[in-house]
Amino acid sequence: MRGIFHRQRKAIGMPPGSLVYTGDAQVEKTSISAVDYNAEYLNHHEDLTPEECHTLTGSTAVTWINVNGLGNTETIRRMGELFGIHPLILEDILNTQQRPRVQDLEGTLYVVMQMVYNEPGQPAIEEQISLVLGPSWVITFQERPGDPLDPIRTRLERGAGRIRGRSADYLAYALIDTIVDRYFPVLEHLGDRILDLETAVLDRPEPATLQSIHHLKRELIGLRRYVWPLREVISSLTRGESPLVSETTGVYLRDVHDHVIQIMDILESYREMAGGLAELYMSGQSNRMNEVMKVLTVIATIFIPLTFIAGVYGMNFDPAASPLNMPELGWYWGYPAAIAAMLLVTAGMLFFFRRRRWL
Amino acid sequence: MRGIFHRQRKAIGMPPGSLVYTGDAQVEKTSISAVDYNAEYLNHHEDLTPEECHTLTGSTAVTWINVNGLGNTETIRRMGELFGIHPLILEDILNTQQRPRVQDLEGTLYVVMQMVYNEPGQPAIEEQISLVLGPSWVITFQERPGDPLDPIRTRLERGAGRIRGRSADYLAYALIDTIVDRYFPVLEHLGDRILDLETAVLDRPEPATLQSIHHLKRELIGLRRYVWPLREVISSLTRGESPLVSETTGVYLRDVHDHVIQIMDILESYREMAGGLAELYMSGQSNRMNEVMKVLTVIATIFIPLTFIAGVYGMNFDPAASPLNMPELGWYWGYPAAIAAMLLVTAGMLFFFRRRRWL
Amino acid sequence: MRGIFHRQRKAIGMPPGSLVYTGDAQVEKTSISAVDYNAEYLNHHEDLTPEECHTLTGSTAVTWINVNGLGNTETIRRMGELFGIHPLILEDILNTQQRPRVQDLEGTLYVVMQMVYNEPGQPAIEEQISLVLGPSWVITFQERPGDPLDPIRTRLERGAGRIRGRSADYLAYALIDTIVDRYFPVLEHLGDRILDLETAVLDRPEPATLQSIHHLKRELIGLRRYVWPLREVISSLTRGESPLVSETTGVYLRDVHDHVIQIMDILESYREMAGGLAELYMSGQSNRMNEVMKVLTVIATIFIPLTFIAGVYGMNFDPAASPLNMPELGWYWGYPAAIAAMLLVTAGMLFFFRRRRWL
Amino acid sequence: MRGIFHRQRKAIGMPPGSLVYTGDAQVEKTSISAVDYNAEYLNHHEDLTPEECHTLTGSTAVTWINVNGLGNTETIRRMGELFGIHPLILEDILNTQQRPRVQDLEGTLYVVMQMVYNEPGQPAIEEQISLVLGPSWVITFQERPGDPLDPIRTRLERGAGRIRGRSADYLAYALIDTIVDRYFPVLEHLGDRILDLETAVLDRPEPATLQSIHHLKRELIGLRRYVWPLREVISSLTRGESPLVSETTGVYLRDVHDHVIQIMDILESYREMAGGLAELYMSGQSNRMNEVMKVLTVIATIFIPLTFIAGVYGMNFDPAASPLNMPELGWYWGYPAAIAAMLLVTAGMLFFFRRRRWL
Amino acid sequence: MRGIFHRQRKAIGMPPGSLVYTGDAQVEKTSISAVDYNAEYLNHHEDLTPEECHTLTGSTAVTWINVNGLGNTETIRRMGELFGIHPLILEDILNTQQRPRVQDLEGTLYVVMQMVYNEPGQPAIEEQISLVLGPSWVITFQERPGDPLDPIRTRLERGAGRIRGRSADYLAYALIDTIVDRYFPVLEHLGDRILDLETAVLDRPEPATLQSIHHLKRELIGLRRYVWPLREVISSLTRGESPLVSETTGVYLRDVHDHVIQIMDILESYREMAGGLAELYMSGQSNRMNEVMKVLTVIATIFIPLTFIAGVYGMNFDPAASPLNMPELGWYWGYPAAIAAMLLVTAGMLFFFRRRRWL
Repeated sequence: MRGIFHRQRKAIGMPPGSLVYTGDAQVEKTSISAVDYNAEYLNHHEDLTPEECHTLTGSTAVTWINVNGLGNTETIRRMGELFGIHPLILEDILNTQQRPRVQDLEGTLYVVMQMVYNEPGQPAIEEQISLVLGPSWVITFQERPGDPLDPIRTRLERGAGRIRGRSADYLAYALIDTIVDRYFPVLEHLGDRILDLETAVLDRPEPATLQSIHHLKRELIGLRRYVWPLREVISSLTRGESPLVSETTGVYLRDVHDHVIQIMDILESYREMAGGLAELYMSGQSNRMNEVMKVLTVIATIFIPLTFIAGVYGMNFDPAASPLNMPELGWYWGYPAAIAAMLLVTAGMLFFFRRRRWL
Repeated sequence: MRGIFHRQRKAIGMPPGSLVYTGDAQVEKTSISAVDYNAEYLNHHEDLTPEECHTLTGSTAVTWINVNGLGNTETIRRMGELFGIHPLILEDILNTQQRPRVQDLEGTLYVVMQMVYNEPGQPAIEEQISLVLGPSWVITFQERPGDPLDPIRTRLERGAGRIRGRSADYLAYALIDTIVDRYFPVLEHLGDRILDLETAVLDRPEPATLQSIHHLKRELIGLRRYVWPLREVISSLTRGESPLVSETTGVYLRDVHDHVIQIMDILESYREMAGGLAELYMSGQSNRMNEVMKVLTVIATIFIPLTFIAGVYGMNFDPAASPLNMPELGWYWGYPAAIAAMLLVTAGMLFFFRRRRWL
Repeated sequence: MRGIFHRQRKAIGMPPGSLVYTGDAQVEKTSISAVDYNAEYLNHHEDLTPEECHTLTGSTAVTWINVNGLGNTETIRRMGELFGIHPLILEDILNTQQRPRVQDLEGTLYVVMQMVYNEPGQPAIEEQISLVLGPSWVITFQERPGDPLDPIRTRLERGAGRIRGRSADYLAYALIDTIVDRYFPVLEHLGDRILDLETAVLDRPEPATLQSIHHLKRELIGLRRYVWPLREVISSLTRGESPLVSETTGVYLRDVHDHVIQIMDILESYREMAGGLAELYMSGQSNRMNEVMKVLTVIATIFIPLTFIAGVYGMNFDPAASPLNMPELGWYWGYPAAIAAMLLVTAGMLFFFRRRRWL
Repeated sequence: MRGIFHRQRKAIGMPPGSLVYTGDAQVEKTSISAVDYNAEYLNHHEDLTPEECHTLTGSTAVTWINVNGLGNTETIRRMGELFGIHPLILEDILNTQQRPRVQDLEGTLYVVMQMVYNEPGQPAIEEQISLVLGPSWVITFQERPGDPLDPIRTRLERGAGRIRGRSADYLAYALIDTIVDRYFPVLEHLGDRILDLETAVLDRPEPATLQSIHHLKRELIGLRRYVWPLREVISSLTRGESPLVSETTGVYLRDVHDHVIQIMDILESYREMAGGLAELYMSGQSNRMNEVMKVLTVIATIFIPLTFIAGVYGMNFDPAASPLNMPELGWYWGYPAAIAAMLLVTAGMLFFFRRRRWL
Repeated sequence: MRGIFHRQRKAIGMPPGSLVYTGDAQVEKTSISAVDYNAEYLNHHEDLTPEECHTLTGSTAVTWINVNGLGNTETIRRMGELFGIHPLILEDILNTQQRPRVQDLEGTLYVVMQMVYNEPGQPAIEEQISLVLGPSWVITFQERPGDPLDPIRTRLERGAGRIRGRSADYLAYALIDTIVDRYFPVLEHLGDRILDLETAVLDRPEPATLQSIHHLKRELIGLRRYVWPLREVISSLTRGESPLVSETTGVYLRDVHDHVIQIMDILESYREMAGGLAELYMSGQSNRMNEVMKVLTVIATIFIPLTFIAGVYGMNFDPAASPLNMPELGWYWGYPAAIAAMLLVTAGMLFFFRRRRWL
């Protein structure tokens, strides 16, 4: 949710293209690795300099350059110069609370997305990923080294699927597809939490339950801010405006587009459900409370008339002064009659309460 | 509602076109049956192999191939190869939480929908149905063998209506029309539940009523996710973009389109009503509770002053010590006067409460 | 509101164009009457057969054929054959929960609307009216014989306005205009009910008031389902897509379009007001209840300390055992002092409550 | 707000163009005045007949004809005939609950708006104003004679601004601008009421405050119905579709358009604020009530155990019968000890309540 | 928030272009300063007359003229005449509650925005800023002299970034970018307040907390009114409709456009969160209150039966009159048995309450 509350942009009024990393990933080193491949071969390269990267792209193969860690702005700047990346885009790569968007500038296609992924059952991790697509290469900028894109690496190595025989735009598609797919387990985790909360709300509602619902809602608000712009991003990629994206890859991107819409649908359903849970909690709480108060009040209401009767016969009017003064006190059946009166009143009230279904 | 919470997609990063069945229908066997017909004849075929199916489509008749059970991915793959179905589409056929959509790829038209149907008075069953339309054939993929499409089979056999003399797109229309029509009894069932809940809310509101409303709302949220995209699906079929759908069939599809809009209208009205019911329940509960508390409090309020009077004359001030000390206790009419005072106070309070309309 | 809850469509999977009347008007007989007129003459015809109707339209005059009662499907089918009405449209004419819509099929224009009208101060009656416009004739299908369209008949007879000298599309306009105008008294009736409910909510809120608001809301939901599609219907008529509607008539239809938008505006305002009333009721109820509880609790709170004082002097500590044991009981001014203490406490509490504005 | 509840349209089914005044302004007389002017001269004319008006427009100057009072339908009809106003428009001029709209019919431009204006600090007055723009003349129809348009008259006389040297469309602009400007003081008045209500809600919430908020909301609903269509009206005037509106005047009208959008913005903000106020009131009320109940209940809770102690020592167990029977009653420190116990219990409870911050 | 409540426009009906300053900045003096620069040189000019300004723009350099304080309408008018600014635009410059918008009139581009900025941790200041862009000059009109635009001045002086070598439209972009960037710290401040309020709501909810939430909501409503139109303003600048804005600058403006959308996103998220906070507060309050009432009622409910028992044995039935009359009073274990009965009742009730989890 960082994008909602923290936004340490560059100082106001700085010229565009000023490169300052604003993220919170404490990764000082900026390491560059690359893979170049075609249908026949695949080579791994580690710890490259920007210049070496640039040389790699000279071949006829597809080159995927991955920049890990955005701390070294000098390296980023150099990459930009060598690959002809517009200064505004370089600025956005480092400025890690970007709204997802796509930009087609000077022959390269720039896509920035928020990657949200989790280990099974773990809370989600957020990371900005920027993707620059050139004619025969893809550069990805990640905030921290990590494995979210590993499945693609594996697929390249194993030569699984069509990926090795295709061009750079297909690689970009595969990366975007993987990033989008990463949202589903996060959604599953949220769905589990909704189901848990629903059980909690129905079985044992506690104030903490409501706070959990509140936090869930906030996470959904935050997630939505990443997903809604994504639709526009991928939809504009599929519209075939850029010559870098082939018609064939467009077909695959439309598939990703459908997944994004599915994510949006699920998010919206979750939001409605979270709202419904909050209402259900409130009304459940109020029901429980009412039940408690009703029982307590019924108890009090039963005893109050009894206490009154007892009070009456606790009065000290002097029977000696007048035959009218509490003659009951001197009767033979006086006390049993009083107790009987009390039992009668109690029975009457219980009957009345039960007939009205208050008990 | 499965589409909201469970989504076991293929492993992240797998190449597109990986065929894994993700549904929960425990149907291991994948059986294929077919019907080929024209105005003159109609033949049934059972337990076909994909190759036999493909041979069938060589004739001039219309062939409807129905694949029941998606467990055998090999058969599905073979069908895809023989009928030229794009791998992405094959993947979607098996991936059973698809958002309804239509895709026109390489000369075949692919429609995926969620079929929701019920036996009269029963809860609804959900099942993904995929439909591939070729020039002279229609393939339907169902998760489980069943009868939702039987009325079409019957119509084909009886030769009722225009269906036998028409081409494959009309068959596709008839199937889609039947699937859409299946929603109406489900809606009727929901409508009955709304009316029942309304009666329950007005007559005898209980916490269980609110939970029923909550579940109803969730079902409506789930159902809406199947129906809203349907409009777009059918609307894009009627737009005449595909050469596979003739102008004449387009007229019939527009009729289905109107039905889908009607379903959406009804769903939205139901959602509003369910929301209204929840509010009505809450306010009814609060009214009832208030009524109880008011009566109880009135009872207590009437007795409290009486108990006070009794308490006063229960005090032990010594009449012997002073003529001012509770001389009432020694009066001839002391006790009757006290009782009379109590009755007066009660009458006064009852009058006051009734005038204020609290009773 | 029938369209929301009841929808007895034809059996699922029946071929399109199957004619089954699904309405609830118990009108067995299907009677056909007609008027043919031009600027010079006007003839009434009653109890016509479909064939006679068809003969009538051969003249150069405008013919208005009115079919009352949809029970005799054979007659309807014959009308369809003679006048070239598409089977899907015939089906819709009988299927009486249609969403308002317009269809231009094979040279005739088909408009289906829900007519909602009332007698002054009476609840509204709903009825589906279908209108088929041909080159020189208009056929109207009504569920039950009745007078909603009588003003047009009168205008034709009296030759009032321009209507006699105009062609069939102007007659269709006049009919649609009348049907739309019928909504206004219904709205006025609803507006009166809102005002009544507002008075009730402010003056004497009762649970029944809330139920009335709930019913009002439901009626507004139902009404909106008839009116929203109407805008699209009339707007598409004014767009001049059909050659059957002349430019001159289009000007008049735009006027009807404005009326429909006005109805929608009013409906939306009513919906907001009904929502506001429900809130006002709830808060009024809660205010009243709070007031009651406050007064009752204040009464109890005043007496509880008094009862305590009385209780204290009802204790039986033995003054003989010790001079410290309740010497007040033996004081000359003991009892008056106790009474005075009670009065003081009461006065203090009343002062405290009033200063805090609780009384 | 009259447009929401009252709509006395002409009788249903009357032919279009039937002239019946439906407003509530009791102005029997229909008086016509006119001003004709150009850059050099300006002439006032009072109490004109329609024919005189028509003669006036023959000159090369611009003529502004103002019709005050719509009671005399004959005069209105005559104006229509002379100036070529379409009968539907004449009908709308008299039909005084029109939704604002613009119509371009047969060479004249017809604009109907709802004028809402107030004297400083006074409630708003509503009046329909219709404006017909011809090549060199403007006719305005007002329901009641009055001054809302006086500033324009003054500007014409003084020759202030550009107005005298411009054509009729500029006069129409000036009139519309004035009518739109009239909304701002009404909004200011509403804004003041919101601020007052906010103070009231925070300082001394009373049921009457909520009713005021409710009335405010209703007024905002009503006002919105006049303003939203206005945007479309003026926007369509600026789109330059009519040859009667010159490009130069279009620039000025876009300025009015911005003002209308500003009014809409403010109205929407007000609506949100009114909603927020209602919530704030409700929660304030509930807070206050809770505070009252808490204090009262605390008082009762403190005295109930004390009364119990007093009750115990008011029991009549016979000390003579057994040494175990209430020996406290005979102790030397018995009474002081009982009082001390009561004080201790009170102190303990006060401490407990305060620690829990209930006091 | 001034724009919502105060709007002292010029008197109604005044001709367009009447120059009256309506702001509340008490700046009588209108001082004009200017900077003219190109890649080689940069000159500062202070306290210029309009005529001097106009002379400056004759050079080939870019001139930025800044008008501080709008009190001297004569100077503003003269500026308008010299630079060919349309009277309507001059009026808007002085009329300081303008909705942000852009206008392209007679070869100059006019942009009005609301600048909202704060010192770190301070509440926000609002000021209208108008910007007129000519072929080689930019004029900015500020309400009060101040530093919000200083970063641009510094960049010009230092020659940092591309700014000195670019034309006037790039200067306009840099100014707009700075103004938009100013919103982010204001948002951060609001975000901090939301987090603070969340802590307050969860930890120690007080009525003042709710008022703070209410004020926050109002500020968000006000802010939104400045930001939403901004999107349209900048989007229309990037659409390349004006020849004054070059394609190259358009790229940079699209970057600003993305920032505005980000601001809108954040504002909407904040609004949702503020709404959620209000709900959370309400339910927390109600929870706390319920807890209090429950404990108090439990205490009372425990003591009421005890007091009843004590009351019973306080009755004065005469044991001498009958052996049935309260023989317990004379028993040896009478008093201890009564106390034991009280303890048993208490234990039973505590057990009951705890088992029901009421304690």
